[in-house]
Amino acid sequence: MGCAPMGHILYDEVMRYNPKNPYWFNRDRFVLSAGHGCMLQYALLHLAGYDSVRVSFFRSLQRIHINDLKNFRQWESRTPGHPENFETPGVEVTTGPLGQGIANAVGLALAEKHLAARFNKPDNEIIDHYTYVILGDGCQMEGIANEACSLAGHWGLGKLIAFYDDNHISIDGDTEIAFTESVDKRFEGLGWHVIWVKNGNTGYDEIRAAIKEAKAVKDKPTLIKVTTTIGYGSPNKANSYSVHGSALGAKEVDATRKNLGWPYEPFHVPEDVKGHWSRHVPQGAALEAEWNAKFSAYEKNYKEEAAELKSIITGELPAGWEKALPTYTPESPADATRNLSQQNLNALVKVLPGLLGGSADLASSNMTLLKMFGDFQKDTPEERNVRFGVREHGMGAICNGIALHSPGLIPYCATFFVFTDYMRAAIRISALSQARVIYVMTHDSIGLGEDGPTHQPIEHLASFRAMPNVLMLRPADGNETAGAYKVAVLKRKTPSILALSRQKLPQLAGTSIEGVEKGGYIISDNSSGNSPDVILIGTGSELEIAVKAADELRKEGKAVRVVSLVSWELFDEQSDAYKESVFPSAVTARVSIEAGSTFGWGKIVGSKGKAIGIDRFGASAPAGRIYKEFGLTPEAVIAAAKELC
Amino acid sequence: MGCAPMGHILYDEVMRYNPKNPYWFNRDRFVLSAGHGCMLQYALLHLAGYDSVRVSFFRSLQRIHINDLKNFRQWESRTPGHPENFETPGVEVTTGPLGQGIANAVGLALAEKHLAARFNKPDNEIIDHYTYVILGDGCQMEGIANEACSLAGHWGLGKLIAFYDDNHISIDGDTEIAFTESVDKRFEGLGWHVIWVKNGNTGYDEIRAAIKEAKAVKDKPTLIKVTTTIGYGSPNKANSYSVHGSALGAKEVDATRKNLGWPYEPFHVPEDVKGHWSRHVPQGAALEAEWNAKFSAYEKNYKEEAAELKSIITGELPAGWEKALPTYTPESPADATRNLSQQNLNALVKVLPGLLGGSADLASSNMTLLKMFGDFQKDTPEERNVRFGVREHGMGAICNGIALHSPGLIPYCATFFVFTDYMRAAIRISALSQARVIYVMTHDSIGLGEDGPTHQPIEHLASFRAMPNVLMLRPADGNETAGAYKVAVLKRKTPSILALSRQKLPQLAGTSIEGVEKGGYIISDNSSGNSPDVILIGTGSELEIAVKAADELRKEGKAVRVVSLVSWELFDEQSDAYKESVFPSAVTARVSIEAGSTFGWGKIVGSKGKAIGIDRFGASAPAGRIYKEFGLTPEAVIAAAKELC
Repeated sequence: MGCAPMGHILYDEVMRYNPKNPYWFNRDRFVLSAGHGCMLQYALLHLAGYDSVRVSFFRSLQRIHINDLKNFRQWESRTPGHPENFETPGVEVTTGPLGQGIANAVGLALAEKHLAARFNKPDNEIIDHYTYVILGDGCQMEGIANEACSLAGHWGLGKLIAFYDDNHISIDGDTEIAFTESVDKRFEGLGWHVIWVKNGNTGYDEIRAAIKEAKAVKDKPTLIKVTTTIGYGSPNKANSYSVHGSALGAKEVDATRKNLGWPYEPFHVPEDVKGHWSRHVPQGAALEAEWNAKFSAYEKNYKEEAAELKSIITGELPAGWEKALPTYTPESPADATRNLSQQNLNALVKVLPGLLGGSADLASSNMTLLKMFGDFQKDTPEERNVRFGVREHGMGAICNGIALHSPGLIPYCATFFVFTDYMRAAIRISALSQARVIYVMTHDSIGLGEDGPTHQPIEHLASFRAMPNVLMLRPADGNETAGAYKVAVLKRKTPSILALSRQKLPQLAGTSIEGVEKGGYIISDNSSGNSPDVILIGTGSELEIAVKAADELRKEGKAVRVVSLVSWELFDEQSDAYKESVFPSAVTARVSIEAGSTFGWGKIVGSKGKAIGIDRFGASAPAGRIYKEFGLTPEAVIAAAKELC
Repeated sequence: MGCAPMGHILYDEVMRYNPKNPYWFNRDRFVLSAGHGCMLQYALLHLAGYDSVRVSFFRSLQRIHINDLKNFRQWESRTPGHPENFETPGVEVTTGPLGQGIANAVGLALAEKHLAARFNKPDNEIIDHYTYVILGDGCQMEGIANEACSLAGHWGLGKLIAFYDDNHISIDGDTEIAFTESVDKRFEGLGWHVIWVKNGNTGYDEIRAAIKEAKAVKDKPTLIKVTTTIGYGSPNKANSYSVHGSALGAKEVDATRKNLGWPYEPFHVPEDVKGHWSRHVPQGAALEAEWNAKFSAYEKNYKEEAAELKSIITGELPAGWEKALPTYTPESPADATRNLSQQNLNALVKVLPGLLGGSADLASSNMTLLKMFGDFQKDTPEERNVRFGVREHGMGAICNGIALHSPGLIPYCATFFVFTDYMRAAIRISALSQARVIYVMTHDSIGLGEDGPTHQPIEHLASFRAMPNVLMLRPADGNETAGAYKVAVLKRKTPSILALSRQKLPQLAGTSIEGVEKGGYIISDNSSGNSPDVILIGTGSELEIAVKAADELRKEGKAVRVVSLVSWELFDEQSDAYKESVFPSAVTARVSIEAGSTFGWGKIVGSKGKAIGIDRFGASAPAGRIYKEFGLTPEAVIAAAKELC
């Protein structure tokens, strides 16, 4: 209720959008970072004409009908308790977990700045939109918001305009109890332009003037601090924490209606209001038509650029792009999968116009630099290497914003695998909001060695295998790394996490891109009739150990199958027949080896099998020593196999 | 190398500590938040006399021998790649993951301020120490640091003095590429006193003066920005990112020695240096003796307070404390476990002098308020309700600092279970650094209803079951909640996570505190001879569903066992015989039900059993409706059971 004036001015006066096509490319983006106030956005979208929209080429029919407003937070309504981009037209990203929205908005604004710099021409500025965001005290307290806003200031994202709903109330009461910092001063320190609207409840002209001022400042993002009263209009509950998470109640709703002079029935939109808002449908259609004409001209004059841009707008991948993926033979040199990953990124960036990304201050360790490009910076925004600084959480959320800006943008981001812990909330939002972000996570086990247990992931593979709609991939060599990238690019509604080694690994016989696409597959087998004596299963850097153990066991006459289980999720998607062909139910002698928690492996190896892994924290020592001390060796696999067959 | 002057001044001139007893209670605390520079701290500790220390009553013998320095980052040395409190005497907390250390330091300083306010008397200021921390650019970029520092400013932690090693270099190069904000301005906004030492390489007197000034400012924490040159002294590699993560190399080490006028062999400590530092052992002994005398006087004059304080210092729990735990019968009213948790907290705080904590702005939802206490605030630091604001990550790390300040401090902290994603890195450090933090995590499933999938945990139980040294507890009712608290308090080297319901749950027959202590136990069984037809397994809010299904199945003549698997980790610790008594290997008909990912359940139900759970994201709707739509019902359990027996 306190945000209604800003929301009204944005949707009715300021923003450029087409209600009948929420995916029109050059629309202004709006993010409600304070997602718990979503009813305001749903109501505005409904008024603006999003009550029925045409089907986007890759999303299913969506609309906000008046019945959806009545069924707020009910089963199968389009109006969930927090804004969800995959449910509701006009909702750009998924917010609610505080701080994510403002960081997504930084990503959206980055995408605009980057694409504008790459594609705009002096005679045709084909990309030109703003990103607006409303955030509250809760978002301001979250560290992720500070991370993302520090980057926004650093990058000079002048078309990012954030409204800070300064209502002094969060769930536990007055912000005095936990939040007495000077937000203005902090944002000035972060390099933002700061404006204060003192009366956000009724100061419409002040808000309009602030937006005008913000647009005039082109080299800095703007924070408009709007001091409001939470629950404004409610005579008895305004300015109290009881309106933060709870409904007013029937009695107070009546009192509020009276107080605000609103005599209508619930959910009734008076004709004059309808009339006032009705211009947005034709206006939006005109805006899009105008832009389409502009794009036609662009296509004529700048054929090559237009083709690239079109691919970014539509998400259609250039024909034959996957031929760019490097391939390897067992004779190719041993290498760390983090290095092989860099070969893939540098090969793919030549054919995928939407690929861009970077690392949280570990580019030279994560091996993520794109050699043919410079750094995306304030004055070189056309470049594609993004420097996120040591800000993992902000990085993930910014990538969500980039991915959801345009179907063809494919952001990747990188840190050590263990530091997914810093960005897990953002990764979960990638998964929930169907954002195709590629997480390049190197140093994926105790194999990183001396940095010790603070840096050595143990439970992380299991923790992501348990997360819905995330592809967890742990390639073992060059071909599997190429396969992982192929899958990551093709899964357009799913983020992928690539767990990559710091240490060198051999190129194995039998690995393949096609194998990776199945998630699990046989890389070698000397048995016949689908009945090996034992199945050895490995992933990533431990697949080599399984192969060595198999070699020894075969020398002793055993029939041994080696399976690479590079992605459990992809394997789960296969037919029962295929699964049975890899893991015949009759073969209960199964040994798995993975330098991580054995949690979850019970299902694969069965009650008679054995899972070799690490169910404790790591240690600081050279990698080889830790592997030996922790019993991750061919000898251990051989011993376990012999016990079983 | 750039930090050597600050380190030297702190350890040689400023800090009060006893090298022969690193756990002396009133010592100044030091945290190296920039943990990758740990060799500096190891060297200083070695010089100061930590080369052999007496055995603390609950920690094993530790020391930093010269051989440990030689074996930097090697197997079983006391000098791991990042500082670890459980490995190295004189290391207070475990750092390395950036930003954690500064947030830990805020917790240490909070503990000091709280205890001083509670226990100090006009005639005997028994608690009086500083907390010093060195942090770098990497820490400054992390959101967690901003969260914790905002709270430190809000709380006015005047005895927290942070050195910001402003060397303009992080791993990827000059901080210009990603970090151009004004840190000074931001910290002023956060309510800190800021001092700038322009020449940190050689400006010893400037550093001394800054510390003096910082100590004089009693109502604000101080940030001393010390501009240094990374790798100072190295003629060819100073001020370059190549010295951030790599060694200088033999040649450059030689050149550096020459440049600094240091003619000695590696690892040789000249006699005059030894002589200079040798005073710290007797000085430390004297400091502790003096303080012990002070404590004796305190004990005489303030008997009751001294007993409480002693319990906090030693970690010894008051005799019979567990009798305070509430008990319940099946006739007790149905209630949400979050409410039952509050009953436990309020009962325990009467008997546990070290219990304190709070929520990340959800106290009224997490039900964590201690009714007999007010808020810990700048001017009321003796109180025990801590208001963390919406800062989950900072909250977790601050609690780690509190827990590691004194063996008897038992911090708890709270948010919605799904937001453990925001603080996972801090929770992992709790586990690794053996910090007994109690994580009170409410709204633990789709049972929270309308807030929708952004707020509904799915994979979280599995993700913590996979994490080493974390107790994941999901109590089903009042007795189990009491049991969970009992275990959480008793496990002094392990953090516990309590997953608690938003919705009401009945008090079940057969649940018990003793059962919880075993992790998994039979709550009802109508079979004989340890051979039920089927075993139904539930946790938390779904145990009720298993009970209802059992009632129905028994009516149909089946012999049914119901098992509560409240903590997998505790169950794993039991004997094989006990485990067999709960899950006889011969009984393969097993059905589990839990409102979370089925990942990991394969090991419990076996290849012939069935795990009922949720392997997708949740939905926004009333809880009952979601349970039904997702098939988490007695009917589903009955159907699965009938298929198996």
